[in-house]
Amino acid sequence: MGTLNINHELDDQIFNTINPLDPEEFRRQGHKIVNFLADYYQNIEQYPVCSQVNPGYLQNIVPNSAPNNPESLDKILKDVQNDIIPGLTHWQSPNFFAYFPSSGSTVGFVGEMLSVGFNVVGFNWISSPAATELESIVMDWFGKMLNLPNCFLFASGGGGVLQGTTCEAILCTIVAARDQMLRKISRENFGKLVVYASGQTHFSLKKSAHIAGIDPGNFRVIPTIKAKEYTLCPKSLRLAILNDLKEGNVPLFLCATIGTTSTTSVDPLRLLCDISKEFGIWVHVDAAYVGSACICPEFQVFLDGVENANSFSLNDPSALTNALSTNLEFLRNKATELNQVIDYKDWQIALSRRFRALKLWLVLRSYGVTNLRNLIRSHVNMTKHFEGLIAMDKRFEIFVPRKFAMVCFRISPLVLSQVSIKFDDEKEVNMFNTKLLESINSCSKLYLTHGIVGGTYIIRFAIGASLTHYRHVDIA
Amino acid sequence: MGTLNINHELDDQIFNTINPLDPEEFRRQGHKIVNFLADYYQNIEQYPVCSQVNPGYLQNIVPNSAPNNPESLDKILKDVQNDIIPGLTHWQSPNFFAYFPSSGSTVGFVGEMLSVGFNVVGFNWISSPAATELESIVMDWFGKMLNLPNCFLFASGGGGVLQGTTCEAILCTIVAARDQMLRKISRENFGKLVVYASGQTHFSLKKSAHIAGIDPGNFRVIPTIKAKEYTLCPKSLRLAILNDLKEGNVPLFLCATIGTTSTTSVDPLRLLCDISKEFGIWVHVDAAYVGSACICPEFQVFLDGVENANSFSLNDPSALTNALSTNLEFLRNKATELNQVIDYKDWQIALSRRFRALKLWLVLRSYGVTNLRNLIRSHVNMTKHFEGLIAMDKRFEIFVPRKFAMVCFRISPLVLSQVSIKFDDEKEVNMFNTKLLESINSCSKLYLTHGIVGGTYIIRFAIGASLTHYRHVDIA
Repeated sequence: MGTLNINHELDDQIFNTINPLDPEEFRRQGHKIVNFLADYYQNIEQYPVCSQVNPGYLQNIVPNSAPNNPESLDKILKDVQNDIIPGLTHWQSPNFFAYFPSSGSTVGFVGEMLSVGFNVVGFNWISSPAATELESIVMDWFGKMLNLPNCFLFASGGGGVLQGTTCEAILCTIVAARDQMLRKISRENFGKLVVYASGQTHFSLKKSAHIAGIDPGNFRVIPTIKAKEYTLCPKSLRLAILNDLKEGNVPLFLCATIGTTSTTSVDPLRLLCDISKEFGIWVHVDAAYVGSACICPEFQVFLDGVENANSFSLNDPSALTNALSTNLEFLRNKATELNQVIDYKDWQIALSRRFRALKLWLVLRSYGVTNLRNLIRSHVNMTKHFEGLIAMDKRFEIFVPRKFAMVCFRISPLVLSQVSIKFDDEKEVNMFNTKLLESINSCSKLYLTHGIVGGTYIIRFAIGASLTHYRHVDIA
Repeated sequence: MGTLNINHELDDQIFNTINPLDPEEFRRQGHKIVNFLADYYQNIEQYPVCSQVNPGYLQNIVPNSAPNNPESLDKILKDVQNDIIPGLTHWQSPNFFAYFPSSGSTVGFVGEMLSVGFNVVGFNWISSPAATELESIVMDWFGKMLNLPNCFLFASGGGGVLQGTTCEAILCTIVAARDQMLRKISRENFGKLVVYASGQTHFSLKKSAHIAGIDPGNFRVIPTIKAKEYTLCPKSLRLAILNDLKEGNVPLFLCATIGTTSTTSVDPLRLLCDISKEFGIWVHVDAAYVGSACICPEFQVFLDGVENANSFSLNDPSALTNALSTNLEFLRNKATELNQVIDYKDWQIALSRRFRALKLWLVLRSYGVTNLRNLIRSHVNMTKHFEGLIAMDKRFEIFVPRKFAMVCFRISPLVLSQVSIKFDDEKEVNMFNTKLLESINSCSKLYLTHGIVGGTYIIRFAIGASLTHYRHVDIA
C-alpha cells in the first residue's frame, strides 16, 4: 500500500491546484458571471445589433493552440468583452427584429442554470426519475394551455417530448411515419416514398427527409400563390398525390405549417388532414413559430383540425425562453404501448438528454399562464402598431396581411415606378428593397432580415425580443 | 394614434408585471441560484446517489395544470429541494461510479451560463460570427492536443464540429458516407448498403443507421471473444465483407471503437482501416469515452492508425465539462469545398445551434492543458488503486485487464463453486452478481452499473466524477 499512498498525495496536490467543483469556488465564479451578464443586458443597446466584424477576424486575435497553464477568469472575461462580444449578433437586443427573435428571460436562464448544475444525463427513467416525470407533466400542462385535443396528452395515450430543435422533432416523426409504412409495404419500395410540402415549408423538412433516406426526387414542393396568402392549396395537394399514385409512388408524409417562416401564413389544416386521411398520409403540423401564441384562446382557431393530425411541434413560448433548447413535440396515439415508465431516449435521436423540463416548469410557474398570454398579446399589439405606422406611409406596401407578430413589407413598386420607368421591372424593385435593407442593417442600430416569396423580395419585421418596448418600435 | 397610445400604456403595465429580462432582477435571481447550486454541491454526499423514488412519484405531488398566476422563485426552489432533488440520480456525487461519469466543473458551468446568457442562435456565420469562428479555433486546439494528424484540422482542409451528442455525430457521418456511396452506385441499391459493427459497439450506431434508412437486416454485428479482450477481429471483418460482396451487397460503413462501453476495449484501428480502405468502406472512430484521455501522450498510442479513418468523434474531457453538451467530431478532407466562412448548420442535423465553443474555450484556458492531463491521470491512478484492492481480495475476479478509468469485475465463479455446486452454472453466477450489485446500489451510498459481455454479467466501476477522491474509492 506504500506506493498507493504516495499516489494519494500526488493526486491531492493536483486536486488542490485545479479544484474542478469546489462549492466555494463555484459560488465565487458563479456570482462573477451573473454580474457580467447583468451588465451585458444593461449595456446591450450600445452594441451594433448585427455584428460588424469581417470573416476570419478572430483567428488573428486568438492563439493557435490551447495554453498549457491556467488563465484567470478575469482575464478570460476581459477577452470575452473585447474579442467575443464584437463578434456577436445580439439576439437579446431590443432592436433585434430579424428571423424570429429568440428571446431569453431571467427565469429561463435560471432554469438552464439548474439543469446544467444538476447535470444529469436522463437517458432512461432511473438515470434521473424526476427528469422524465416532470417532462411528461409539463408537456401535459402545455398541451392543455394550447387546448390540444386529449389524444395528444399522456393522460389519454398520446404524449409530448421536449426536443432540442425543430429539425430533430420533424426527423423523428418522418422516421416514425417511414417505419410504419415500411411495415405495410415491403422495404423494396423505400425509394417510392413521397414527402409533401409547400413552397413555404421550412427548410428543416427537406433536410430531415434527406437524412431519413427519402429520395430527394420524391420531395414534392407544392407552389403557393399570393392570392391565397401563400398557403398550401388542398386541391393542388390532391392533384400531386393522384399523380404520384399514377406513377406507382407511395404518398407518405405531409408537413402543414401554422405560421410559415417568410410570411407567417397558416395552411388550411382541416382540409389538408381530410385529404391526407383519405390516402393514409401522416400529417405533421409545424407550428414552430405560431404554436406558442396559441396559448391565447383567440389564436387557437388556427389549430382547427389538429385532432386529425398525427404529430404536432412548436417552439416554447418564444417570448420567454430560449427557443433553442426547448422544442415541444406532441404525438397522437403513440404506436408502442406506454409502460409504467417512459424512456425518452426512444422518443428522440440522441441517447442522452438534459433535464429539459426544469426550464419550462420554472417559466410556466414563475410567470403564470395569464402573464404569458399577455406578453404574447403585447408583442402582437406592438406589431400592429408598427403595421399602422407602415400603412400610414404611402411609400411602403404591406405585402401580406399581418396575422401575428411579424409585418412583411417593401417599398411600393407603384411609388418606385413613378420615380423611374426602370422600376416596372420586378427585378429592379427587388434590388431597390435589397439595398434599402442592407443600408438599414449597416447602420447597426437595428437588425431586420428578408424573405423571398414568389420571386418578390420582402422585408420582415418580427417582434419578440424580451427587451423590446414601444419606443424601440417607434424609432425603427 | 389615440388608440395606439392606450395600447402603449397597457403593454407597459404588462412589462412592469413580468419584466422578463430586467438586468437587476436577473442579477438578484442569478445570485440566488448560484447559492442554491453551491449549497447543493456542498451537501451532495447526504443524498442517496441513485434516486430511490417509485415510478409516478411526481404526479401525485405536482398540480395537473400550469398555474394562472406567478409563483415566487423562493417557493419554486423549495419545491426543487423537496420534490425534484429526491427524484434525481446525483451524477455529480463523488460516489457515482456508474455508466461513464459525466462530471461538471465550475468553469464548464460558467461557460454554459455565458452561452445561455448571450443566447445566440448560430445557424450561419452572420447570425453570430464569433460562435462559428471560435468553434473552428478551439476544434483545432483540441485536435492538436490529441496529436491528431493534420488532415483532421481546419488548417489542413479537414475540420471539427461540436455536436450535441455522439448519436448526432455518428448519424451525420453515416449520412455523409451514404450519400457519397449513392452518388457512385445508383439509388436503387440503397437497400444493399451494409454497416459493420462489433458486438461491443455502442447502441448509438444501430440507432443512427436505422434513422439514416439502412436496412436493419444489413446491420452486421461481428461477435467478439474474451481471448481477444472483446475487440473487433480484422479477420472476421474481412470474412463478413467478402460474404456481403458475394451476396451482392454494398459494404458502406465501419465503426471502430476506442474504449467500448462495457469493457473499454480498444479495436485494432490500423488493421481495420487497412481492410476498409481495400473495400472502399468509410471508417468512423468512436472514441466517445477514451478520446479525451488521449490528450495525455501516453494514451495516444491507442489512436494509432487514425490518419486512415474518415471521421473521429469523442466526448469532451469528461472530467471537466458536462459530457452532454459538447461532443467533438473531426472530419477528414471534407468533401465540399470550404469557403471563406463555415455555416455549421450544414455540419449537423439541426439548423440552429448554441454558442457551444464558448464552454470548451473557457475550460481549456481556465485549467490549461497540463492540469487537464493531470486530472485524467489522477482518475486513472484512482482506478488503478481500486483495481489493486479488488485484485488483493480473492473473492473477486477482474474480468478484463483495466486500460483506463474503469474496472470490470465480478464475484469469482471459482470461489462460488466452492460454496455450492449450483454455481457451476454460469447463469447462477450471473444471478449472484446481479443480486450483489442490487444490494450495493440499494444501500444508496454509492452507484455502480453492470454490463453483460459474452453472456457474462460484470460489475463496472467507473471513475470520473469531479468530486471523487481516494477516500470515496477506499470506502467503496
